[in-house]
Order: sequence, then C-alpha cells, then structure tokens
Amino acid sequence: MNGAESLLTTLVNNGVDVCFANPGTSEMHFVAALDEVKGMRCVLGLFEGVLSGAADGYARMARKPAATLLHLGPGLGNALANVHNAKKGHVPVINIVGEHATYHVKYDAPLTADIEAIAAAVSHWVRTAASPEDIARHTADAVRAAGVGRVATLILPADVSWGDNANGAEGAVSRAPPRRVSQESLREVVAKLSSGSRCMLMIGGREVDLQRGRLLSRIGKVCGARVSTDTFPTRQARGAGSAVLERLPYLAELAIDHIKDLDYLVLIGAARPVSFFAYPGVTSCIAPPDCEEILLATPDDDIDQLLADLVNQLGAEDIEPEVHPLVLPELPTGDLDVAKIGQAVAHYLPEHAVVVDEANTCGLPPFSATHTARPHDWLDLTGGSIGWGLPAAVGAAVACADRKVVCLEGDGSAMYTIQALWTMARENLDVVVVIFGNRKYNILELEFSRTGARGGTPGPKAASTLDIGGPDLGFAVLARGMGVQAHRADSAEGFNRLFAEAMRKKGPYLIEAIVPPLFSGA
Amino acid sequence: MNGAESLLTTLVNNGVDVCFANPGTSEMHFVAALDEVKGMRCVLGLFEGVLSGAADGYARMARKPAATLLHLGPGLGNALANVHNAKKGHVPVINIVGEHATYHVKYDAPLTADIEAIAAAVSHWVRTAASPEDIARHTADAVRAAGVGRVATLILPADVSWGDNANGAEGAVSRAPPRRVSQESLREVVAKLSSGSRCMLMIGGREVDLQRGRLLSRIGKVCGARVSTDTFPTRQARGAGSAVLERLPYLAELAIDHIKDLDYLVLIGAARPVSFFAYPGVTSCIAPPDCEEILLATPDDDIDQLLADLVNQLGAEDIEPEVHPLVLPELPTGDLDVAKIGQAVAHYLPEHAVVVDEANTCGLPPFSATHTARPHDWLDLTGGSIGWGLPAAVGAAVACADRKVVCLEGDGSAMYTIQALWTMARENLDVVVVIFGNRKYNILELEFSRTGARGGTPGPKAASTLDIGGPDLGFAVLARGMGVQAHRADSAEGFNRLFAEAMRKKGPYLIEAIVPPLFSGA
Repeated sequence: MNGAESLLTTLVNNGVDVCFANPGTSEMHFVAALDEVKGMRCVLGLFEGVLSGAADGYARMARKPAATLLHLGPGLGNALANVHNAKKGHVPVINIVGEHATYHVKYDAPLTADIEAIAAAVSHWVRTAASPEDIARHTADAVRAAGVGRVATLILPADVSWGDNANGAEGAVSRAPPRRVSQESLREVVAKLSSGSRCMLMIGGREVDLQRGRLLSRIGKVCGARVSTDTFPTRQARGAGSAVLERLPYLAELAIDHIKDLDYLVLIGAARPVSFFAYPGVTSCIAPPDCEEILLATPDDDIDQLLADLVNQLGAEDIEPEVHPLVLPELPTGDLDVAKIGQAVAHYLPEHAVVVDEANTCGLPPFSATHTARPHDWLDLTGGSIGWGLPAAVGAAVACADRKVVCLEGDGSAMYTIQALWTMARENLDVVVVIFGNRKYNILELEFSRTGARGGTPGPKAASTLDIGGPDLGFAVLARGMGVQAHRADSAEGFNRLFAEAMRKKGPYLIEAIVPPLFSGA
Repeated sequence: MNGAESLLTTLVNNGVDVCFANPGTSEMHFVAALDEVKGMRCVLGLFEGVLSGAADGYARMARKPAATLLHLGPGLGNALANVHNAKKGHVPVINIVGEHATYHVKYDAPLTADIEAIAAAVSHWVRTAASPEDIARHTADAVRAAGVGRVATLILPADVSWGDNANGAEGAVSRAPPRRVSQESLREVVAKLSSGSRCMLMIGGREVDLQRGRLLSRIGKVCGARVSTDTFPTRQARGAGSAVLERLPYLAELAIDHIKDLDYLVLIGAARPVSFFAYPGVTSCIAPPDCEEILLATPDDDIDQLLADLVNQLGAEDIEPEVHPLVLPELPTGDLDVAKIGQAVAHYLPEHAVVVDEANTCGLPPFSATHTARPHDWLDLTGGSIGWGLPAAVGAAVACADRKVVCLEGDGSAMYTIQALWTMARENLDVVVVIFGNRKYNILELEFSRTGARGGTPGPKAASTLDIGGPDLGFAVLARGMGVQAHRADSAEGFNRLFAEAMRKKGPYLIEAIVPPLFSGA
C-alpha cells in the first residue's frame, strides 16, 4: 500500500467519501489511488475555488466533511477564499494539498511556495506529512481535527504519496462528545432571563435546525425574551413549521438600532455581533454599551442539550413554539423585480429544497418571502468572501441528491467562480441557479454611500468601478457554454414559467433574471 | 489630503499609473480617490486572479509595475496564484490590499483574516500601514521594494485610507543602479570559456531582449560555447533578426540529456536548472554531477553591462551574431492540428506582436514555428500556476496599445481565469485568443505517465479526472457571453481565415481551435 492509498483508505474508513479535486503532477499518485481504493467519489472542478466552496456546501448538508485535492501552494491559494468562508461558518473541511517530494522542495522549482504559511491563514490545523509510514496517522489526525466544524489541511509531498511502505490505513477515529454547558452558567442565564430584563437569545454556529429553532422559540416565549439568529446562519431550517426567529440585520446602522434596548444578549453558538466593516463614525460593536453579552455556548458545545436544559429549567415543556404557517404568495405579474422573484420562488419552492443565498442586495426579498414557504433549508455566506454560492450549490447537491437545490446568486458574485456551472452539468446535479442580473456591484454602491467617501457619491471613475454592465454579461449564454440549460427572464410571467419548469425538471438549470438594482447609487 | 489620495498620488508620481482593481467596502475611499487624483488608469476585473495576472503581463511589457487593488485576505487569496507567477518571473507588482480599519481588526468580523501571512507567501516585501501620516512614505517604500523585479504588498486599513491627515505625497524615489558583476568573476568565467571546455551560457531573468540575445550569440560564437535561454523566459525577443538560442527543455528527462556533456554551465540571470517536479527515479538537478554551475549574475545585476564586458574581454566586437532569417511558413491545409496552428500563427503574426503562451502541451509547435516569423516578443508562464495567460494578455495589451497581443491558451488553463475575457471586451483590448480545445488536461496525462503511477496508465476514475470533455466547453459561446467576438475552427483553412481576420481587425477576438491531443494518454 502506498501513501496515497493509505490516506484515501483512512478517509473512506472515516466516512469521508467525497473528494472535490483539481490535481496536478504532484498529485498523480493520489489520482491513481482513486482506482485502487473503493468508496471515494471524486468530483472534478475546473478551478479550485469551486472545490473549496463545494466542500463547504457539502459539509453543511451532509453534516460531515468532504476532502478537497489541491495542487501545491497556488492551488490552495485559488481555494483560499472559500476555505475562509467555511472556516468562518464552522464548517468542517479536509484539504489535501499536494507538495513537491520532500527532497525536491529545497531546489525551489517554479511551483515551490510556502504552503504551510498559506494554509495557516485559513485552517485550524495544518500538517505536512514527512513519510509514508505516518500518513495513515496524519490522516486520522486530520479527520479528528476537522471534527464537525474545523478546517484541517494536510500537506502531502509527492514521495509520501508514492512511497509504498505505508503502514496500512487507520479505522474510524473516536471523537469526544461536545462539551455540555455547565449548570452554573445555565442558572446564571436563567436568572437573567427570569428577571424581567430585556433579553435576546441569539443562536448561531453551524446549524439552526428545526428542533433548535423550536426549542429557542419556546424558551423565548416562556420568559419574554426575544429570539433571533445571527446575521448569516450557516444553515437554517425555514418555511412552514419552522420557528419564528428574528434575524440580526446586516447593516450596522440597522443592527445597532435593532437591539439598542437590550439589557442582556445571550449568545448560543453565535459570536458577539460586530459590524461587518468599519465606517467612519459608526461603532464596531452592535450591542449597546450597557448591554451585557453572555457567551453561553460556542458552536462546539452541545447546543441541543443546552436548549433542552433551558426549556427544562424555565418550565417551558408545555409551551408551544411560535412557528410559521404555510402561506404561499400569489404569483407575480408585470415587470420583473427582486421582490417578484421572491414571490415566485416562495410560491414554487418544493418541500426539502436547499436554498443557497449569495444574492447580496437581492437576497433579502426572497428571504422574507420564503418565511412561510414549504419547509426548506437556507445556507448563507458566512465569511463574506463572494464567489461562494455556485460552488456551495454544487456541494449541497452532491450531498443531497434527492433534494432540489436553488442557488440565488448575484451577477457580480457569480463571476468569481462561474466555472462551477460546468461541474453542475458534468455531475448532472439538481441545481437551479437564479442569477440576479442588475449589472452592478450594487452592494458596493450602497457601501460607497455608507462609507461617506466623497460625500457618499462616487465620481465617474469610481462609479465605473462599481458598474459591471459594460459589456453586458450573458449568463444564459455562459451557462450554455458549460453545458447547462439556461434561459433569460425579463418579465414576472416569464420568470414564473421558467422557475416552474426548473422545479419540475431534474438537473442543472439557470435562469438569468434581468432586474433593476435595489439600491440607487446615483 | 486623505490617505488614499496620498497613496495614489505617490504611485502616480512614480510612474505607477495603472491599477488593476476589484474593490470591496474597505477600499471605497481608494475608489473615491480615483476621481480626485489625476493620472491613474483603473482597469476593473471580475476576479482577482485576472488582476494579478494582468499586473504581471503589464509589467513585463511596460518594464514598470502596475498596482493591483484587492479586497482583504480573500481578495489577495484569489490573486495569489498569479502573484506567485510574477514573483517567480522577477516581475514587479505593487499589491494594495485593503484591510479593516485598524481598530476594527480585533473584533474578528467575518472578512477578517491574516493578510500579512498570506501576503508573505508570495511577496518580497509586506507592510501594513498604521496611520495616514505615514502612508506616503510606505507607498514610496513599496515602489522602491518593487523596483524592477519584486512583489511588494502594502496593506491599507480603511481608516488609514479615509484619514484626512496624510502628509502630502512623495515624489519619485531614487533607485540604486543594478550591481555590476565584478571583473574578477568575469575573468574567471572568461578563462573557463576560453579553455576549450564544453560550456553553455544560459540567460534568464526578466527579459532576453534583442540586444542581449545578440550579445550572447556573439560571445558563444567567439569561444565555442553553447548559448541558451532557460526553460520559460519571462520575456524574450524572437523572430527574424533575433539571436539563435537554444532553450532548455521542460521535461527533466530531455533536459538532462540535453546538457549531459557540459563541463561548465554559466548562469546569467537564470536559476540553476532543476526539474519542474520530482519523479520517482529522476534526479532533481538537471546539470550532470561533474558540471560546474557558475551563477555569474542574478536577475538584479547589470546584465547588459556584463554581456558587453564579456564581448569585450573575449574580443567578440567584430563577431556577427547568429540570427534567425525571416522565413514564413506556407499556410496549412486539411484537418486542424497544433502544428498547423503554429504554421498559421507564424505566417500571419504581425511585426511587434506580443505572444502570451499558456498553451502547455500545445505551446511547443507554435514556439518552434515562430523562430523565423516577423519580430515579436514572447511571454512564458514563469511560476507554473495555470490561469495566467488570459490575464497576462490583458496586462500586455494595456501596456502596449499599439501592438497586437496573441494569447495561445490551453482549454484547461483558460477556465481558471476565464473572466479575463470580459475585461478584454470592456477595455476593447487588441488581444486575439487562440484556445487549443483538446478537451483534456493533456499535460497531466503526460505527467501521469511520467510519474509511473499505476504503471503509467490511469484507471477509469483517474482518466476521468484528466478529461474535461464532458460536458464540452464552448469557448466561442463563453466569449460571446462576455462580449468578445468569437468563432470556432475545426479545419486548417477555417483557422487560417479566422486568424487572418483577427490580425486585420482591432479589438478582442477569440478563436476556439478544435485539435486532437498531442499526447495520447490511453
């Protein structure tokens, strides 16, 4: 057994059975091992940012990590932005990064780079394997390190991969159960929640599933606390039957106003809320200065147990959660805009759909419209690095072959990793992509005004930098160039018809929706 | 004057007057300053890898750096692969990377990352500006650090950008002249060259211009030494009138054989030749063990002076260099293949064209065919990280508005940074892209066999990983989706007609050439 086979076998033994790959010369023995080791599905991408985003989307839906296979430092660099997003979303990923043979690194060949340094910036765990004998152990350590919410990067020199003196493979690693939040912490929080103070319970971490949302709702109801998710939940169960939860606004100005009256903010898997960016004259911290922020649980803690304990201690066992009813909006008519797309999506969205949202300014209306749609899961961009949506949709579809994936995608963001469409076609993934074609970096027009630069109004050169309408991008054309069926919609009726058709069919389908920008930059 | 204006003014004062940009919120004051500071051309790209590759191509042709404007750590990550290529090619680049406001970093907002760590892996110089007062000095230092062949990365926190207490701008920085190679080193080499030993003079560094090539040829002729470039020169003057120089083969097996008889290898701006990758049983070093490798000059040394000194000391003043005649091949006919594309390109290539070569397996026949074409410059991939060609063509065309740029591009490589086509259309750049559509990672099929994995023959899963033909990529369609005129050629006659038309017209034009793979993987 060579090193690559030992590595692959150890991964498969641990349930890591999907690898999003774009190999180069130094990974050829790994590629060869795909035919020697049973049980690893290899999904090819034409650009590494597709792979890392797919690994993120996959892990969110499969609740276990995929592997990526990346070619040396530049391959990891190409993957970096979406590895960053996974890291910020507490999503597990195991990156396998090929490296020159151990004895070859010192010659500084053209592709030599400091892989460990690049990896460290976006990984919780980084290790370079030194010999085939140890590769099974290193792989098992990587699986352990990735756990359920971390990024582990294992650097695999070519001679470790091809060396045939590996010590077999390792079996399934054991994992410590998540930490239970202490009864003392619980009692303190229960006292505050019961004190009549203005409290908000904010849930975050890697998943707000149906059960967690409902428990949170019951807790809020019994003690009069507000209940909310953080701004961009990694994964959230939504639609009919899901709990009614607030969501912290993205815009710092709105978020600050939204929670300005709080005495206590109890964080359950959520981080302390801060402004996404700094703006002149706007505070970084969202909660008011006299609000006490209580970090009750990290994403790694046992949040299910914590919520059950809170229900128990607060006597909320018989309280009914407040849940969304099933209410489907009417189909829209007339000129197309983002709100109408939200209505149509909410109208047709099938049960158990997975919505991947990277529509930026265009995401909010569909989010609001789908509160009472059929039950579905919603994935958000967690690290702010655009070019995530299409790849994440690839990964979600690989994880959930029997669920419809709907990717709501801004035109600017789509272009970062447009190659993902090809993988959707190659794997015949059941993904429907809606491109919001407003021909702008519209969120940046909004941000420009928020920063107050040049009095909030861009001059001609700045405005040009935020405008992607010259030349017009033809997304339906681009999609067809990568083998994906695609059509353009410029009326509500046209969108309804295309989206309905897309929901009926299986396989990748792209709708380019021509919409006016939500925010007027001039 | 705010920090952004101070920075921009200092860049412009130093002749850095092109910025390849893709901004985000933290760069909005930089964007605003584009309208306040005269003289900076801002070129928008839809993905950061386009920007860094464009900065590389620009600097090779303009012989001075461009700036890039990148959004935080993920933006730098997206740019990383082509920054790596520039670094390996000794090409100057000044990266401006936006960062959160200094006081905001500690809050670990979603887009926070260790920018310095990422930058350090691909930069010679990295600095984070701490206050607007110092930004002019930092910018001048970055210009000095970039010099004529280095990567400088200046990290610009948002509050340094918007702070209005900058100390004006700095003027043109002074630069030390390149180091002159010592007379003692020269004498030693002259003695060896005159000894009747088997010598090769290998030139590399950032440019093999017409004059350098001819001087080298005269030196070789007078002392009977072989003269060669390294494998992938950053920039080389070629075609009729250029010196006849060997080129070190890419394949280690061939390269080792190519110079197996040498006693001395004299390196002039070139690095010690090593195998691109490690292969089982193949040595990393290309030169034979008993060959003495003499590093006579680094890329930073005064290579022009060195060559003049050698001519002088060896008494080659009256020797004529061996140069290529002007011989244009006949136009090909019949089924299209890579060799025929080489003939047609050589036939039509106009004087002063710039050829950007990222055709990988398909690049060699056109390279050979154009030895005797009209005079042109040839740019090669220097760092091995694919996705460089289309962006580099953007940069070369921005630098040389009056020269035709021809980009020879592999289909696999093209897809890494396909967004570059949009910038070509937006800026109406005079670039003709030839896509070699063989539907394979054909070089990896070759590399698979060279590594000897699985006896050199990929199994079905491995073979699938090297095959990008399912679904077929429609490059002409993709180009049209980004506003670039494009056509497909599948016969020699068809290719001739399209390429001739492309040479006559101005503006971006893509030809998708359907060709059989050069290397048969099965």
